[in-house]
Amino acid sequence: MTSSPRLTVRTLDFSAQENLCVINEETAKKIGATLESRLMIRLDNLKAYYFGVIISGKGFVNKDEIGIPRDIAQALGLKDGDNVNATPVNVSESIEIIRNKLKGKKLSREEISKLIRDVVNGALDEAGIAAFLSAQEAVGMDDDELYYLTLEMATQGTVLSHPYPVYDEHSIGGVPGNSKVALVAVPTAIAFGIKIPKTSSRAIVSPSGTADTMEVLARVDLTADEIKEALVKVGGTLAWTGRLNLSPADDIFVRTERKLRIDPESQMIASILSKKVAMGVSGLVIDIPTGEGAKVSTINEAERLASRFLMVTNKLKISSKVLITFGGEPIGFTVGPALEAREALETLMKRSGPPSLVHKALSIVAALLELSRKANYGEGLNLAKSMFESGKPELVFRKMIEFQGGNPEVKPEDISLAEFSYTIKAPFSGAVTKINNNAVNIIARAAGAPFDKKAGVMLHAKIGYRVNQGDPLLTIYSSSANNLNKARELGESLAVFEIGHMVLKSIP
Amino acid sequence: MTSSPRLTVRTLDFSAQENLCVINEETAKKIGATLESRLMIRLDNLKAYYFGVIISGKGFVNKDEIGIPRDIAQALGLKDGDNVNATPVNVSESIEIIRNKLKGKKLSREEISKLIRDVVNGALDEAGIAAFLSAQEAVGMDDDELYYLTLEMATQGTVLSHPYPVYDEHSIGGVPGNSKVALVAVPTAIAFGIKIPKTSSRAIVSPSGTADTMEVLARVDLTADEIKEALVKVGGTLAWTGRLNLSPADDIFVRTERKLRIDPESQMIASILSKKVAMGVSGLVIDIPTGEGAKVSTINEAERLASRFLMVTNKLKISSKVLITFGGEPIGFTVGPALEAREALETLMKRSGPPSLVHKALSIVAALLELSRKANYGEGLNLAKSMFESGKPELVFRKMIEFQGGNPEVKPEDISLAEFSYTIKAPFSGAVTKINNNAVNIIARAAGAPFDKKAGVMLHAKIGYRVNQGDPLLTIYSSSANNLNKARELGESLAVFEIGHMVLKSIP
Repeated sequence: MTSSPRLTVRTLDFSAQENLCVINEETAKKIGATLESRLMIRLDNLKAYYFGVIISGKGFVNKDEIGIPRDIAQALGLKDGDNVNATPVNVSESIEIIRNKLKGKKLSREEISKLIRDVVNGALDEAGIAAFLSAQEAVGMDDDELYYLTLEMATQGTVLSHPYPVYDEHSIGGVPGNSKVALVAVPTAIAFGIKIPKTSSRAIVSPSGTADTMEVLARVDLTADEIKEALVKVGGTLAWTGRLNLSPADDIFVRTERKLRIDPESQMIASILSKKVAMGVSGLVIDIPTGEGAKVSTINEAERLASRFLMVTNKLKISSKVLITFGGEPIGFTVGPALEAREALETLMKRSGPPSLVHKALSIVAALLELSRKANYGEGLNLAKSMFESGKPELVFRKMIEFQGGNPEVKPEDISLAEFSYTIKAPFSGAVTKINNNAVNIIARAAGAPFDKKAGVMLHAKIGYRVNQGDPLLTIYSSSANNLNKARELGESLAVFEIGHMVLKSIP
Repeated sequence: MTSSPRLTVRTLDFSAQENLCVINEETAKKIGATLESRLMIRLDNLKAYYFGVIISGKGFVNKDEIGIPRDIAQALGLKDGDNVNATPVNVSESIEIIRNKLKGKKLSREEISKLIRDVVNGALDEAGIAAFLSAQEAVGMDDDELYYLTLEMATQGTVLSHPYPVYDEHSIGGVPGNSKVALVAVPTAIAFGIKIPKTSSRAIVSPSGTADTMEVLARVDLTADEIKEALVKVGGTLAWTGRLNLSPADDIFVRTERKLRIDPESQMIASILSKKVAMGVSGLVIDIPTGEGAKVSTINEAERLASRFLMVTNKLKISSKVLITFGGEPIGFTVGPALEAREALETLMKRSGPPSLVHKALSIVAALLELSRKANYGEGLNLAKSMFESGKPELVFRKMIEFQGGNPEVKPEDISLAEFSYTIKAPFSGAVTKINNNAVNIIARAAGAPFDKKAGVMLHAKIGYRVNQGDPLLTIYSSSANNLNKARELGESLAVFEIGHMVLKSIP
């Protein structure tokens, strides 16, 4: 009487963003599924997955068949002809937990554990995930909840361990052009023998994440075994977390955060730290870019956030340092995956580059040296600088590219930019007094970054530069004429640059 | 350069809950769409609709074709071969508005208007809608926001007007068995010549809504013209709002509320009142069931809610009365569409029935009589009672059923109940001191109500009844053996009935 119906898998030549399956009307009726159901699909006694339901007429899939988009079938290890159990499911317990959080209640470890389980296995659909993220945004989480959220996200996925201490650095991001910092900092730290299995997610609300940028030069979808091998052979990685099943809940949250353009503090901290726990990291440098138009605008606020991070890393027994860095204008001159990959490569090759990039990257290296006891307190920066100027980091970077399947001989000019471009010029002469981060992000995203890897923005001036009327201020790149046009309109209507000059008005 | 690409519609033999379309890889690339895009689809210069994207291989749909599930194509008036413009869109403005609400900011009328527009035309997907509802649940809305939300929801859809005053009654629900009250109250009020174009939504978190229950006896998907005709020929309707395009945003919100099982106060008030504004109602009775296990548990809380309703109806110039009614146990003896339709029909035919049903229905009629000046203050109830006992309401109800396409000769025993049933018996003798509303709702929903119309719960006792050990307490009905089993397990583990007796324990 309670035996769940068995359906035969038929893969469909589709890609879909969510787990969606197709069953026909008859099958739907038989198993008691409606368009509003979630179906739990389980092959033998393997892990259960959950699907939204599309109901087809009789011709498309047969009775007792379940159509599954090929991509999703592959990802879940299902193939044509598999016999699966399909049962409509109930997520009322997790929905109740989310409702409680929306009403301001504190969640227990057990509740957080249950919720994360339903997120990871896919039982909770995007409406539930959006509501949970919204609850965190509106209500927040206290220190206990945050610690449990981190721990549950970390432990409900793969957890790696290593025979030696490994380190990592992570920026909370939010400032345009920041994704390339790791491409300079990580090879430099590795050059000192520090092991750095760095993984990062793709961009959430910014035009490029470190994974997006590194992907211009090499594969980033490394497996756990490849990362372990890289630690031995190269000293570290610049990888994407997506294929690693590290904190798998996070990848699901990120997708909805990206759509809603929210990044609740508790979720941000748990997201970052859960991946570090899962990666088996014993020391961590956290960068909080601070300034107008960054995620954090004041030093006070940055200090408060730093103390939340350190509270959790302390409970997690990860030795950590927080760097509060200047985030009031873009880092370097480029924003967008290909543009930033090129700028990072040039910087390593020339052993010099924009101070906002080089000084920041080397400060991170310094903190890593001090955390790993390779430098005494206060002595890390000089060591980092000498190493950077030695040129060795470029060689490490090329080894990393090679290990990750890219071309180790790549030259900056090999990295092609999008075919359509448009340059905005200075409307009058003066000194640049401000660059609006948010406007730069919006324009770069409108141009197509990070999905269009060749899209983005190149700045021709930074704060303090003198420009003459007609000088180029920024160039927008896009692979789509349509998107270029949108980005250009935004570029012309948003005040990206503030240019000060002494004469405010001349009468008449 | 900004011309948007034209695609050819191909209807697919599918049903989907959301607007989803299928394009092939080539087309996706050409128009710049990814799995994360929303596509704006517009036929000539008609209304634009927004779709989530599924990307197929080359075989399934051709280049420059857009596959649309048949149901959705029909609903939107699209047919095979139509040439539509398809443009990836940006809902960043509405997303920003939602983020602001999550952060606790007050929204302006313009912001609410923009947001509702993106909800109505489908630009905002379910993640956005869930976030907006969550913001209302966690943060709330003040009186101004609530008034604007009501007005924008009402006016961004069809608005009817009538050559005479029309009235309505509405319960905020939450108490099991309440959906049938309107089936008794509305025909009785119509028998006095009061015009009542009653429309209601389907159940949100309860096992049946008035529309679900009436649908057992007749069509409820009336058009605006049919409602106008019914007002003339019959005096009113018991219809579903779904096909009327009254407050179309509401139907979209309801779907996600149902999934998340939340019903934020501001959204509930705006939902109810926006449909009344759109229906052109000039007088309204609002029922707030109050008691343990109802939406509102105390009289104080009910009074606070009543004043919010009256604040908005006052601004809207709808003369209104609020009734605070006892909601501490189910109304009547039945819960679920078919069971309740049967009980209402029996009550009208016998001209008597459970006091919780008859007294409540007649109190609503009394308030309508007083609002419409057909009775002086305090005299409505006796008039209503005489009318009920005259048998005329049954005749009106049968005319309503006939007008709505049902069988006007229907007998209670024609309304079939689900084939599987199970009866829970009293574990010992005593008097019923409490019935747990929430448990009744959970069991009836687990049994399949409201989607399975024949499913639900029949109570055999109410508060104050004496039962002997082994007497039936409740019978669960379900069309699915699986669901019956789930509901039965819940019925046995949840304390639905509290039975008091004097001996608490006997030793040894």
